[in-house]
Amino acid sequence: MVIDLNSDLGEGFGAWTMGDDAALLDIVTSANIACGFHAGDPVIMRRTCELAVAHGVRIGAHISYRDLAGFGRRAMAVSPAELTAESLYQIGALDACARAAGDRVRYVKPHGALYHSAASDRSTAEAVVAALAAFGGLSLLGPADSELSAAAAAAGIPFHAEGFADRAYTPQGRLVPRGQSGAVLAADAALRQAVSIAVDGRARTVTGEPVAVRVRSLCVHGDSPDAVRMARSIRQSLLDQGVELRSFE
Amino acid sequence: MVIDLNSDLGEGFGAWTMGDDAALLDIVTSANIACGFHAGDPVIMRRTCELAVAHGVRIGAHISYRDLAGFGRRAMAVSPAELTAESLYQIGALDACARAAGDRVRYVKPHGALYHSAASDRSTAEAVVAALAAFGGLSLLGPADSELSAAAAAAGIPFHAEGFADRAYTPQGRLVPRGQSGAVLAADAALRQAVSIAVDGRARTVTGEPVAVRVRSLCVHGDSPDAVRMARSIRQSLLDQGVELRSFE
Amino acid sequence: MVIDLNSDLGEGFGAWTMGDDAALLDIVTSANIACGFHAGDPVIMRRTCELAVAHGVRIGAHISYRDLAGFGRRAMAVSPAELTAESLYQIGALDACARAAGDRVRYVKPHGALYHSAASDRSTAEAVVAALAAFGGLSLLGPADSELSAAAAAAGIPFHAEGFADRAYTPQGRLVPRGQSGAVLAADAALRQAVSIAVDGRARTVTGEPVAVRVRSLCVHGDSPDAVRMARSIRQSLLDQGVELRSFE
Amino acid sequence: MVIDLNSDLGEGFGAWTMGDDAALLDIVTSANIACGFHAGDPVIMRRTCELAVAHGVRIGAHISYRDLAGFGRRAMAVSPAELTAESLYQIGALDACARAAGDRVRYVKPHGALYHSAASDRSTAEAVVAALAAFGGLSLLGPADSELSAAAAAAGIPFHAEGFADRAYTPQGRLVPRGQSGAVLAADAALRQAVSIAVDGRARTVTGEPVAVRVRSLCVHGDSPDAVRMARSIRQSLLDQGVELRSFE
Repeated sequence: MVIDLNSDLGEGFGAWTMGDDAALLDIVTSANIACGFHAGDPVIMRRTCELAVAHGVRIGAHISYRDLAGFGRRAMAVSPAELTAESLYQIGALDACARAAGDRVRYVKPHGALYHSAASDRSTAEAVVAALAAFGGLSLLGPADSELSAAAAAAGIPFHAEGFADRAYTPQGRLVPRGQSGAVLAADAALRQAVSIAVDGRARTVTGEPVAVRVRSLCVHGDSPDAVRMARSIRQSLLDQGVELRSFE
Repeated sequence: MVIDLNSDLGEGFGAWTMGDDAALLDIVTSANIACGFHAGDPVIMRRTCELAVAHGVRIGAHISYRDLAGFGRRAMAVSPAELTAESLYQIGALDACARAAGDRVRYVKPHGALYHSAASDRSTAEAVVAALAAFGGLSLLGPADSELSAAAAAAGIPFHAEGFADRAYTPQGRLVPRGQSGAVLAADAALRQAVSIAVDGRARTVTGEPVAVRVRSLCVHGDSPDAVRMARSIRQSLLDQGVELRSFE
Repeated sequence: MVIDLNSDLGEGFGAWTMGDDAALLDIVTSANIACGFHAGDPVIMRRTCELAVAHGVRIGAHISYRDLAGFGRRAMAVSPAELTAESLYQIGALDACARAAGDRVRYVKPHGALYHSAASDRSTAEAVVAALAAFGGLSLLGPADSELSAAAAAAGIPFHAEGFADRAYTPQGRLVPRGQSGAVLAADAALRQAVSIAVDGRARTVTGEPVAVRVRSLCVHGDSPDAVRMARSIRQSLLDQGVELRSFE
Repeated sequence: MVIDLNSDLGEGFGAWTMGDDAALLDIVTSANIACGFHAGDPVIMRRTCELAVAHGVRIGAHISYRDLAGFGRRAMAVSPAELTAESLYQIGALDACARAAGDRVRYVKPHGALYHSAASDRSTAEAVVAALAAFGGLSLLGPADSELSAAAAAAGIPFHAEGFADRAYTPQGRLVPRGQSGAVLAADAALRQAVSIAVDGRARTVTGEPVAVRVRSLCVHGDSPDAVRMARSIRQSLLDQGVELRSFE
């Protein structure tokens, strides 16, 4: 009964802010910190690393396609060699900020369009994993039973699967795509699902059947006051049920 | 009778190329590699690090103001905190590429407008040096008797002074500003000055007087075929005079 | 008793938002729209132009140094030729969006560090004015009795001076620099000053003396809910005193 | 017996150069000028427009996905609304430079990955055409019998088809994809094909059959000294055969 809570942090850029990092750092155990390609600039990265260290939160590199204008949400036909190099660049840049804060980058999570591409396309997944292998000492956080998990296994990179409290699952244990009816759970159902995943390793499908969802981390969001409240409730529900909140090693 | 030869490398960007890196890597002992802020992209940075390792050339981070459009040549009013964070970001990004190539970033040299600002403005110099101190394990390459050398000394960061074979010096041991008569030496005079600096620690002023120029490195250029030929001649002249070419530690 | 109210709009970028454009468009008569160099992207620019047209608000190009990371607030050593070309680029880009919305760019206002440089440095002012002259059909909005107004006059470009309701003036009719005691007026004083500038062409100095401030426009801000409330109060106070709110031609 | 020769110009960026614009401007009748999204900056755009005007060469906007790092060669999942706005932005920016040079943007040609997407995907083609319609007064240059030509026809935008002297055609009149055997013609064959397309409206397939290729323009390249020589030879061969070189209206 141990689970990690991860969230995206440091997603401002220059004069622009996004999300409530201060609130999230009291909630999560792992911080996916933007590295300047979809969000984040050096000042924000450094400050976010310092805050994460101060809160005892694990630092991860939230790597992305190079697309500030699109917030990394647009798929791009980037070659594997480019993607590996761009991933290395981002990991190293954040690692310098983490070092300056007294810690290191411990894991990597792809962001946005790269998350989806790497989950479903093996060569994209391998290009990301190649960056972790080249850098050394990193684990990978991503969707269970995906090309990312397979590529990590093949390369001997530790992989941590993440689940979602507020998303319905298919009978195959995959997320019901956004836009489909029932894809997003209401607050009460999300709290129950968070506990059920953490305690029993099970979520519920849209038709109400239980389905195995074995994950080491739950992803929570902080992009609105409601999202922060939900994340805080998930944390409290887990603690109430005796679940230990702890980042993966 | 030991001297280092350093040059700027990896200054292409995307589809654009600049300089003859392959030729320079046969000439120099230290490579100032662009980190993406004035030039360089992750693919170029990775390839340049691999080439530097293959040639036994020391890897340095050529950090810059964030100004791709201006090639880092335009002074910018960047706050010290921003500059330290931007420097850390660049050093870390290149270090990841160097690690992937089996080495590490060993030193830092500011580029262009940042070089000039940091040489003459103490708070800019201190902001750069703070990044080296936060990252750890780095030395600094720059102009002798400058705010950079003073800031490095104050912070306990090893500093290596560089000189120029093809530039005339003032009686105070500073460079005659470009644009002044006699500021740039002809090829023959430059070869003699390279040897004189390396062997005797002396250059000649525009009026012909000797002046002490004690530097650990000479900066050579590769941005034109003529520049590469000159760099090769300087290397050969130094070897002919029994000077050992070796990077600083 | 006619005055214009201008404000900065369209200052989001990609996924990031800034300011309450919808609220401001009910308040102002001229919109300084960011052109992508300090803020704004093509989607935001197009939408802001459409909203301005729908509200009958005049469209101006809020041009800036090329510095998204610094929101255009950092002085840059850009050559006059570059600055003229960069200004033309921004004006044309916004003009295409304005045309698509059924209008045109009518005026230009420099933003941030460029505003300050162009106000005090003649060659910067001339570089900006050269872009207006080359494009044609534009007027310039900026600080009274500045290098900008002088350069515009010399080039035959119509110039509109702007004042500030919430800033104290010196006996010479210039703004008391931010950071000095009394530089920013409290809400009540700002409302009085807005009316006094519009009706009597006079502001008050920090020591209470009246000073002539003859401007065609007042700049209001929308970067916080308080700022929007203040802008709305200024508008209402002006209307209550019989001042006509109308953009310059 | 009238044909246009078009080429990509102004593809440098900041300190980087690409292609021999001066040579090409003596050869072509239409210049596809980069607008800052894949290449080109305001200074280069302005200078290229001035040179085009001085040579009597027609100015076209060479619009691209926003991807300087990838030179616009990487497909991106940009929404139609974004693509229309980004196209408008680029057209307007170049138009301001053209106006400053005494002319206007007359046509648009998509570049790189956008060229290929818009040729084969109707919604991409429509998004590009929507920008031309919103701006007004423009024609479109692109591949014959493509989604681009169809979308232009549907919107009432004049369309000019372009062909290639140095590329083999399929029996259906399409280009043999690069990488396939015989896709690129040798110099002699390319010269013959240029004349054959211009005079007879026919190219030869890889198997030697004639195929109708009715185009108003031929695209020539200037990215290497060999390419420039070939472009010059094509021009001379066309003139020798009595073909008039003239841009489309």
